Amino acid sequence: MAIDLEKGVYLDHAATTPVDQRVVEAMLPFWTERYGNPSSIYRLGRDAAKALNSARERIAGILRADPSEIIFTSCGTESDNLAIRGAAFAQRARGKGNHIITSSVEHHAVGHTVEQLVKKFGFEATFLPVDHYGMVSPDEVARAIRPDTVLITIMYANNEVGTIQPIAEIGRIAKERGIPFHTDAVQAGGALSLDVNALNVDLLSLSAHKFYGPKGVGLLYARKGTPLWPMQTGGSQERNRRAGTENVAFAVGMATALELAYAELEQTNNRVRALRDRLIAGVLERIPDVELTGHPTQRLPNSASFVVKYVEGEAMLLSLDMKGIFASSGSACTSMSLSPSHVLTAMGFPPEIAHGSLRLTLGKGNTEEEIDYVLDVLPEIISRLRAMSPLYQPAA
Amino acid sequence: MAIDLEKGVYLDHAATTPVDQRVVEAMLPFWTERYGNPSSIYRLGRDAAKALNSARERIAGILRADPSEIIFTSCGTESDNLAIRGAAFAQRARGKGNHIITSSVEHHAVGHTVEQLVKKFGFEATFLPVDHYGMVSPDEVARAIRPDTVLITIMYANNEVGTIQPIAEIGRIAKERGIPFHTDAVQAGGALSLDVNALNVDLLSLSAHKFYGPKGVGLLYARKGTPLWPMQTGGSQERNRRAGTENVAFAVGMATALELAYAELEQTNNRVRALRDRLIAGVLERIPDVELTGHPTQRLPNSASFVVKYVEGEAMLLSLDMKGIFASSGSACTSMSLSPSHVLTAMGFPPEIAHGSLRLTLGKGNTEEEIDYVLDVLPEIISRLRAMSPLYQPAA
Repeated sequence: MAIDLEKGVYLDHAATTPVDQRVVEAMLPFWTERYGNPSSIYRLGRDAAKALNSARERIAGILRADPSEIIFTSCGTESDNLAIRGAAFAQRARGKGNHIITSSVEHHAVGHTVEQLVKKFGFEATFLPVDHYGMVSPDEVARAIRPDTVLITIMYANNEVGTIQPIAEIGRIAKERGIPFHTDAVQAGGALSLDVNALNVDLLSLSAHKFYGPKGVGLLYARKGTPLWPMQTGGSQERNRRAGTENVAFAVGMATALELAYAELEQTNNRVRALRDRLIAGVLERIPDVELTGHPTQRLPNSASFVVKYVEGEAMLLSLDMKGIFASSGSACTSMSLSPSHVLTAMGFPPEIAHGSLRLTLGKGNTEEEIDYVLDVLPEIISRLRAMSPLYQPAA
Repeated sequence: MAIDLEKGVYLDHAATTPVDQRVVEAMLPFWTERYGNPSSIYRLGRDAAKALNSARERIAGILRADPSEIIFTSCGTESDNLAIRGAAFAQRARGKGNHIITSSVEHHAVGHTVEQLVKKFGFEATFLPVDHYGMVSPDEVARAIRPDTVLITIMYANNEVGTIQPIAEIGRIAKERGIPFHTDAVQAGGALSLDVNALNVDLLSLSAHKFYGPKGVGLLYARKGTPLWPMQTGGSQERNRRAGTENVAFAVGMATALELAYAELEQTNNRVRALRDRLIAGVLERIPDVELTGHPTQRLPNSASFVVKYVEGEAMLLSLDMKGIFASSGSACTSMSLSPSHVLTAMGFPPEIAHGSLRLTLGKGNTEEEIDYVLDVLPEIISRLRAMSPLYQPAA
């Protein structure tokens, strides 16, 4: 099978994914025919409410949650914001304290939200360190807990380096101490188990566009009884936890995408993991002075991330782009920033090495031919860029 | 032309509208083909960024704003929340004070947000009264201003009774006093001018699903220099004012819907106003003890709202539903609530009268046949309901 370079070789599924055609088909009726407002009491409104509730139930089934515990939001970032700000404010109002525990490798949707609470609303925070693989230690979480700790928030899987955190174990510690535990599962959704009971989580964030659903819809799982103030106020939608007319089409789309992802989970993961392993092995074999970043085994099945010494990440991306390969040097959300990745820095990489980061994240549409094409093109690109670099001294 | 009762006679366009087929067509490519993340630097990402920027420019053109002043959000409620909470916190941090002026007929997205700031974050608020038509007096706004007033928020047009507020005049007063002025223009969008300079507004909220765009996308216009804290933190999207991967498809959909609405504005308004006037005249003529609510002339062209004495609103709606007519008794967002409308109460209607409210809001798809059908069916329904009411004493 030949590669369609006009369409391109898409290796940035951690940034976003194409919407599955079956998801588009599921959403279509809700714009022109079944367009009622779910809050309206007539037939057309009740039909919309029914579709919304059904989407909620289908999602709850995958999370092993009660449908009432699913709050639809507009994206993963909103879910993280609602979980953290909502729980922190609610806990403080109950006199529980104002200390938050998080890690130093969180997505900015978590990190910047905790920072805003610290800088502008009088909270305190502990940003836990990670090891060289980006892993948080459950022991360190336990040690960081104070009598005034009101929330622990640790991501499920890292968006830049793919490392999977020991969430169930951290959750067990949080539960023992009676502290609400949130996990940003945005990057894990569609790849890892989302069983909220096995994971011991009270709050869990997801975003549909990471698993072949549309951009613009997410959800927050909030276990019954978890203190949570609404952060978007107005009408009584989502049981008074998130005001605003419901995006029925996208709720249906998200449910459809999640169902497809989990129905096809093993098959997709096995296929993608094999391609990813071929890619990692090829890169490490063919290119000198390259290191795999993130945990070697406890990592997302689609994630290959590297630091390529003596090369600037952006230069690699632009060169790959010219060859029809779409890759990233870390989180898409920070691609405009010139500072080195806070994740790689926390993992102990010096800035000059962190600048050479390359993230290739695979998806269900990728083929062996595409991987071989990348393995063909990438070594050349890196050789050329290194030849221009004042820092690079080739081995004699 | 016969009426399709299976499809129904939709007279609740203030609650939501069907998406225009041209809007659906404009969005479709952004799910399966042009699916890039606008923050990504390769071709597919730049293409998405271009579409997003073009949507922003097209919208800015209609608002006579600069594209950098348009913040895409997930709905009108989010826009209202961001405007009010964002400006209030930013103003207080600058030492400007903590007093907010609003009206007693705002949508809950405004009213409840101001209430949360008062109850939970130490702000003070003045809820201005309205006259019998639901109109706010600019003089009362001026009198309510204190040295510590940090924000004035008054809606453009009321969602329940259609009354259009003197926004330009209130805005002039706010500008003279140097106080940021926000207007919730959600119900006015697609019907009234959105020229932010003529309106003298600093912040203006819109929601696409009120003008034949999809549910799940809105915007906040924020004039350059208006103090505003981000209320959704994370990545640097929307110039650091609203984090989260952009919903490119819906931004394009909203721009398309807004352009269509304003290209066809006069034609649509004239057509809808004529039908609406026929409806109002018919209702007042054929049904005794009915009063038009809201201003008789300063009202949205598509809005007909009444109080029908001795009848319960919900009973009317269910009876109309059985005849294939979809109407509401006020805001859809509060349809599940049993308390009388805060809008009608503020306008001086006693609870027992407010309970008999009926809102019929027309749209571009309605026909004269449909209006005549309503005028045929509604008097019968009301007679029947009144005959069952212990309160009703028919004239001898």
